[in-house]
Amino acid sequence: MRDLLSIDELDATELTNLLDLAENFAAVQKRDVPKVPALRGKTIVLAFFEDSTRTRTSFDLAARRLSADVVNFSASASSLTKGESLRDTVETISAMGIDAIVVRHRSSGAPHQVAKWTEAAVINAGDGWHQHPTQALLDSYTIREHFGDIGGKHIALCGDIAHSRVARSNAQAFATLGAQVTLVAPRTLLPSSLDGWPVQVADRLDDIIGDLDVAYMLRIQNERIGDARFPSVREYRTLYGLTVERAKRLRPDALIMHPGPMNRGVEIDPEVADDPRSVVLDQVSAGIPVRMAVLFSAVGPGQFEGEAA
Amino acid sequence: MRDLLSIDELDATELTNLLDLAENFAAVQKRDVPKVPALRGKTIVLAFFEDSTRTRTSFDLAARRLSADVVNFSASASSLTKGESLRDTVETISAMGIDAIVVRHRSSGAPHQVAKWTEAAVINAGDGWHQHPTQALLDSYTIREHFGDIGGKHIALCGDIAHSRVARSNAQAFATLGAQVTLVAPRTLLPSSLDGWPVQVADRLDDIIGDLDVAYMLRIQNERIGDARFPSVREYRTLYGLTVERAKRLRPDALIMHPGPMNRGVEIDPEVADDPRSVVLDQVSAGIPVRMAVLFSAVGPGQFEGEAA
Amino acid sequence: MRDLLSIDELDATELTNLLDLAENFAAVQKRDVPKVPALRGKTIVLAFFEDSTRTRTSFDLAARRLSADVVNFSASASSLTKGESLRDTVETISAMGIDAIVVRHRSSGAPHQVAKWTEAAVINAGDGWHQHPTQALLDSYTIREHFGDIGGKHIALCGDIAHSRVARSNAQAFATLGAQVTLVAPRTLLPSSLDGWPVQVADRLDDIIGDLDVAYMLRIQNERIGDARFPSVREYRTLYGLTVERAKRLRPDALIMHPGPMNRGVEIDPEVADDPRSVVLDQVSAGIPVRMAVLFSAVGPGQFEGEAA
Repeated sequence: MRDLLSIDELDATELTNLLDLAENFAAVQKRDVPKVPALRGKTIVLAFFEDSTRTRTSFDLAARRLSADVVNFSASASSLTKGESLRDTVETISAMGIDAIVVRHRSSGAPHQVAKWTEAAVINAGDGWHQHPTQALLDSYTIREHFGDIGGKHIALCGDIAHSRVARSNAQAFATLGAQVTLVAPRTLLPSSLDGWPVQVADRLDDIIGDLDVAYMLRIQNERIGDARFPSVREYRTLYGLTVERAKRLRPDALIMHPGPMNRGVEIDPEVADDPRSVVLDQVSAGIPVRMAVLFSAVGPGQFEGEAA
Repeated sequence: MRDLLSIDELDATELTNLLDLAENFAAVQKRDVPKVPALRGKTIVLAFFEDSTRTRTSFDLAARRLSADVVNFSASASSLTKGESLRDTVETISAMGIDAIVVRHRSSGAPHQVAKWTEAAVINAGDGWHQHPTQALLDSYTIREHFGDIGGKHIALCGDIAHSRVARSNAQAFATLGAQVTLVAPRTLLPSSLDGWPVQVADRLDDIIGDLDVAYMLRIQNERIGDARFPSVREYRTLYGLTVERAKRLRPDALIMHPGPMNRGVEIDPEVADDPRSVVLDQVSAGIPVRMAVLFSAVGPGQFEGEAA
Repeated sequence: MRDLLSIDELDATELTNLLDLAENFAAVQKRDVPKVPALRGKTIVLAFFEDSTRTRTSFDLAARRLSADVVNFSASASSLTKGESLRDTVETISAMGIDAIVVRHRSSGAPHQVAKWTEAAVINAGDGWHQHPTQALLDSYTIREHFGDIGGKHIALCGDIAHSRVARSNAQAFATLGAQVTLVAPRTLLPSSLDGWPVQVADRLDDIIGDLDVAYMLRIQNERIGDARFPSVREYRTLYGLTVERAKRLRPDALIMHPGPMNRGVEIDPEVADDPRSVVLDQVSAGIPVRMAVLFSAVGPGQFEGEAA
């Protein structure tokens, strides 16, 4: 592997290998010095053209724990504000002799473009409504850690599917790993076509909630609220939110997941976010070893030997 | 020690131990490679929800000279702009496996809240009008370096006491270390109650200036100017500023201090800021070893052995 | 050398020595771990008071490849927004015990001022319309790499000479190294006096294009467009742009250069920017070893021994 642009580039074996590698890196995290020298001398650029706390910081920490040099490239401080094209920006960064670019961008497909313009490995950290492959990996990792296996599990992705790169990536990863995936959303928030989505659809969370192994709640973007296709917050919460009442019908061994940041009181009730079945913070923790595995696979020396930093 | 939330958590012995440890780190600064490996593999997050040059940079350098990994978390680039709560933000950062969070926040008490939400050590880098404990430590360090001892010294804190976390922290630290502390301020800029403040009050700087060992001038916040409780800049300078005339009455061996950034011409005349008795830049320099001592005490391996990086 | 404030501080021998040193660092870039420990324990502050991608990132990478600690000091996050003077800001940073400050500033002469206020080495990363010495060095490096020598080459600097620190620095460096330099610009975009400029002037690019070894196109600042002294974009391109037609008259072995970011379609046609004779990305690549050489000369241990990191 060099680039990671879209989760559907990976088959079940490749996904599993990445998750296995991430498990090795999770073990490294428990050491007194939680670092390995694997990427010493490598330079990784974090090119985030959209604000992000968790994803940027997670990649930053992952890269440092591999002993890479990390350069933050923030859009507002960049020549893009002088009207330079994305291509010229990428070619310029690339000419400085870097090894990987982690790209987040508002436009679907931007990382694919970037990959055409650079010899460096390109990791998609979220592009428009399109893909967020490392999110799918860390979510798969989290589910596997809890259940031992993803195969055969029933996972609902609930919320604004149409505008969610998380939904798209996760549905593909979960299905590839053998899960049964159900989308739950108002019809207005489903993609116009579900061709190629390996999923079923349910209209109401109540119809399936008792059967679920995982209730994965998507974030409602603030900019959706007020949109004609979006119900009122109250109506949304009543029909699609994981309320305290609804969470009672979820099995005791089921998992509650959310990619964060949460809109407590909209797609998830505050008490439910803190429910013992919620693994929201485990998802965050999984981000470090999973992104270490992705970066290592992209620019590392091949086999991970586990040597100490 | 793990957290450092408020200076009044520390008694005289603990304060003195920290200053002694800082002296060791000051000696490290004079080495050819001014670093120690003490915090190698530790991750320190600088979570500044308020702008700051000197404090953020000082912590950043202190952490690097201990060989820690430093992650800057800037509020504007964060999910807080998406409406995420401070708690969710802190829990998220914390789930990434970090060792310490250095917090600056507009709201008094925010670092205490943060400490409830994380296993990581929390260092208060300034919260509202409440506390700025590392400022009190570096100021104590500076005075001790010059006089050998703080005990028995007469120190005036002059300016907008009511809205100053520096005044609150410094009064406590100086008094704990045995100094006599006098607040000098217009009545409108004193706190409504001085219960628990180990201080005397003077109305006019002129009444005490000849007796002082240290004249500590507080910054007048620009946002105060124009406020009904604030005198005109001219009147303030005349009664409470350290003017050239007034500085002449200060003893030749007294110290002139200021936490910076200075409003030259308001609370301190430009010539006085550059007076030989001014130790403003010594205060800045002291920030590095003092913050190394604080971070080392919070997340270090116990005793400092002085080994080279 | 300690400071690098203006390219005219360096004579031909000193320029050549720096370029030779940069060649050594370019060889380091080809190693598996492209770093040397030369500046371990040194702290370099990047104080950019003006936005920049390429220059800031290039200095950042150069410093890291020398194993220095790099601190980014961004103007907007700084006390300058609280009204602190540049002098107080510099003295404060300096009191933290740093080794070099790389300064970019809107005002011509600002780095010279900074150098008066600090013991640290000061590197000018671009000041107003005045100087950009590391740009001149990396451009000299690029030309030397391609031709083996700069002496005797005919180089045209074309565009808004009056407001260009690149033009000023490059004209001096190229002439010192023995090139023949011709400025090509509308009269309204030439400096009011060319006293001390070691150059000839041509009114039209067409008059000299067939004779050139290097066509160096300057960026037209967006803020110029609409200015009374500036022709229309269309007229500018027609008379001074490196159009596809005009590029055909350039010799097959000539170089096309631009400091970036390019305004494709204004000073250079898109196809010409990607012409095989264009070395725009080589210029960017040269920035790393050249800035390593500058930082090493400013704060390094003397002779470069080439040891591995």
